[in-house]
Order: sequence, then structure tokens, then C-alpha cells
Amino acid sequence: MIPPDHPRYRSLVIREHLADCAKKGIVSWEGLTAHGRGEAFDYLIGEKTSRSALLAERTAAALLISAHHPVISVNGNTAALASEEIAALQRASGAVVEVNLFHRTEARVTQIEDLLRDAGVEVFSGEAEKLLPLSHDRAWCRRNGIFSADVILVPLEDGDRGQALVAMNKTVIAIDLNPLSRTARTANLTIVDELTRALPQITRACGELSAAECRNLAGSVDNDYLLSEAIREMTARLSHALD
Amino acid sequence: MIPPDHPRYRSLVIREHLADCAKKGIVSWEGLTAHGRGEAFDYLIGEKTSRSALLAERTAAALLISAHHPVISVNGNTAALASEEIAALQRASGAVVEVNLFHRTEARVTQIEDLLRDAGVEVFSGEAEKLLPLSHDRAWCRRNGIFSADVILVPLEDGDRGQALVAMNKTVIAIDLNPLSRTARTANLTIVDELTRALPQITRACGELSAAECRNLAGSVDNDYLLSEAIREMTARLSHALD
Repeated sequence: MIPPDHPRYRSLVIREHLADCAKKGIVSWEGLTAHGRGEAFDYLIGEKTSRSALLAERTAAALLISAHHPVISVNGNTAALASEEIAALQRASGAVVEVNLFHRTEARVTQIEDLLRDAGVEVFSGEAEKLLPLSHDRAWCRRNGIFSADVILVPLEDGDRGQALVAMNKTVIAIDLNPLSRTARTANLTIVDELTRALPQITRACGELSAAECRNLAGSVDNDYLLSEAIREMTARLSHALD
Repeated sequence: MIPPDHPRYRSLVIREHLADCAKKGIVSWEGLTAHGRGEAFDYLIGEKTSRSALLAERTAAALLISAHHPVISVNGNTAALASEEIAALQRASGAVVEVNLFHRTEARVTQIEDLLRDAGVEVFSGEAEKLLPLSHDRAWCRRNGIFSADVILVPLEDGDRGQALVAMNKTVIAIDLNPLSRTARTANLTIVDELTRALPQITRACGELSAAECRNLAGSVDNDYLLSEAIREMTARLSHALD
């Protein structure tokens, strides 16, 4: 048992939860490693939503609610960490939610879809085809889901697919704690924030933004600025670490 | 299967290997998350050995070959990632190799010892006693092994034990990608480099250093300088990342 007064209680509870999900097959073992990687970057941004991340989150909301066919792509870690937050964002944005996995088996897809449905998500399911120009299993998606999206939110993405989606002229919104990753740098808009902090902020903004704010935000996306701000915050924190 | 054309092929293959080792019980699930945290810091140092890390590695070699009773302490992640590199360093330095685990069971110790022996390591084994002043299982070691060491190399260490070993007046050499960790800050010498890059550099230096170089390096260890250099490199890389 993790004592609730432990200074890293929340982080330890999340790790334990992810390990349980790994034992059940929802999270891949590699997903645990990816989570550890995120933890390190979250530590460097001080484990809170920065001003620039909040701007990115509001911009993401603007892009999602202005889209013709917005899609949220969900993998194992995202489902394990934030099914309810995905459900709330779906209600606020009207986005299609589709499961897409790197370590893909039909059984795992079904298991994750069930977990999402239990949390209130309306999951876009059915026959998948190998439609994306990728050599691995993330190529598999649905013709009327991810393949047809104009705006796609990809939390915890692998860089390869991020690039493929951008090359298909989709507007790609990434949630990635590493501002140097290929995903962060190739996405049209990158939110450098932890998933369970980022999703509720996007959901809130979906309900708050006026049509004019929406146009303004969607029309002035500057990912280089957002990434450089995230990096500036990490740099400041690192350089004072030994003080 | 991970496609060999994936730009992060090596990193993904290592993750897969660690996941396999976790399924067999060699690596703990906490070890997978810890590996991910290391990956993030490796990213920040550019996934290469820096000048200051190379200095630390040559200094480590000097300390090991000048020691009366050098010991290399091996845990699950180290065995899974670098058994052969440990064998080579043992041949070059004459160090005793002993297994010491946080998540300790006799079965796991035996499994890891077997893995090391298969890679050519001469493992110091036999009856362990609870000899270190620690409340957890890393307290268990051998009287003529870790307990008697004057110089001890602790790759991928937990902060608690690092402090206990320093308090016992041992010269502690850590390999830790996080220059902010307790281990990195309490060790006498910290190598901020990835394990499978660091170990061969120490081994090479063991064969190259003259007696005079050895004396010079061992007599001028400055861990604060090494850590601040590592942080400076991370900061520089971060701040130029978007150039």
C-alpha cells in the first residue's frame, strides 16, 4: 500500500495502476517505459500546466470544435490513464474516438474499446484496414474514422505516425511531454503537458470559447513558439537545479 | 515486430528486451518505468557520451584499478542491459561482481547470477547477510563482497543505498543519467551516461591509463564539476533544440 502522505503519492498510485493495466494486457510493457520517460519531462516542467501549455490547450479546443471531422486517437496508455477525460472531451467536442495501437492485437483493441465504453465513450469501431503509409501496426485504422479526419488529436503518440498523418494533410494535435520528440516537432500543434491535466483543459475551453476566439486561436497556431516556451521553462528549471 | 526502418529502432528493441526480461522476472516492473526516466535524460544529453562523462569514465577506471577491493554491484536492469559489458569490465579491472537487488527474492538473485555467468562473468555468490544499514532488501550482501569493498561501482542505483555506502566510507561510483537524482548527488563520482556506452569506456580506459594518469585522475575527483557540466550540456541542448 502506498501511504497517502507520501510526497509522490499521486505519481506512485498512477504507476501502480499502469502496472495493473500492463498485467491485464491493456498497457503494453513498453508503455510502462514510455510512461517513465514522460515522468522525467513532467518533472522538468514542474508537474503543472504552464501558460504556454494552456494556450496550446485552448488552441486545441478551437481546432477540434472548428473541424469537419475531428478524431481522437486512443492507445493503451491513454485509455488506462484518462478514459473518463476522453469521454468528457468527446461530449464537449463531438469528436470521433478510435483506438489505434502500436502493439496491436484484436484482443487488445477489444479490451481497450470496452474500457473506454465503460467510462462513457462512444467508440468508433468495426472493420479496420491498413490505410496509413507505415510499416507497423499503427497503419491499421478505419476508413471513416482516422483515415478521413481533418483534425486529429493524438495523445502519447509515436513519431512515425505523427509524421504520416501530417503528410496526409491532417491537422495533427499532439499531447507530448517531450518538446524535442519527433511527434512534438512534426505536429501542427503540440501540448507539452501531462495527459490528465491537458484533457480537462481542452474540454473546459470547448465550452468557453466564443466563435471569435475560436477563429483567432485556430488562425494563429505557432507551434515553434509553443515548443520554445516549453523548452525555456525546462531550461530555467534545470539550470537552477543545483542552487 | 519492430520494423528495422523505425528511426528509434534501437531504443524500441531495448525496451522490448527489457519487457521480455520483466516477463521472466529478471527486471521488475518498476525497473521498466525507471528505464523510461533514464531514456528521457539520455535524450537531453543527445544519446552520446559527453566530454565530461568521458572524463568521469576514465576517472572511474583509475579508481577501480587503484582499489584494493573493487566491487561492481549488479541489479536486474544492469544484468538485462549489459551482462557482456560487465564481463569485459571485470576482466579489465579485476573487480568482484555481486548481485544486489531492491526487489529481492532468492529465485531472482539466482536467475540474475545465471544470466551473468552465461555472459562470462565470474559471479561472487554464496551466503548473503543483512549487513548494510538499510530497512529494505538492498541491505543484503556478502561480507567479503560489497561489505568489504573500498571502491564500489553502482550502475542504476537507488538513492538510499548510495547514501548508505558513502556513509560507510566507501568510494562510490554511480552511473546515473539523471544528474539531479540523490544517487548522482551523493556518489563520490557520477557518470552521467547511458550504461552500455559507459561500461565499455571504463573498460577501455582500464587498459589505456598509465600509472601517472591513474594517480592524477584518482586524486582530482570533482563530482560537483561533473554534475554541473552534465546539467550545462542538457541545458544547452534544450535551448538549441529548435535551432
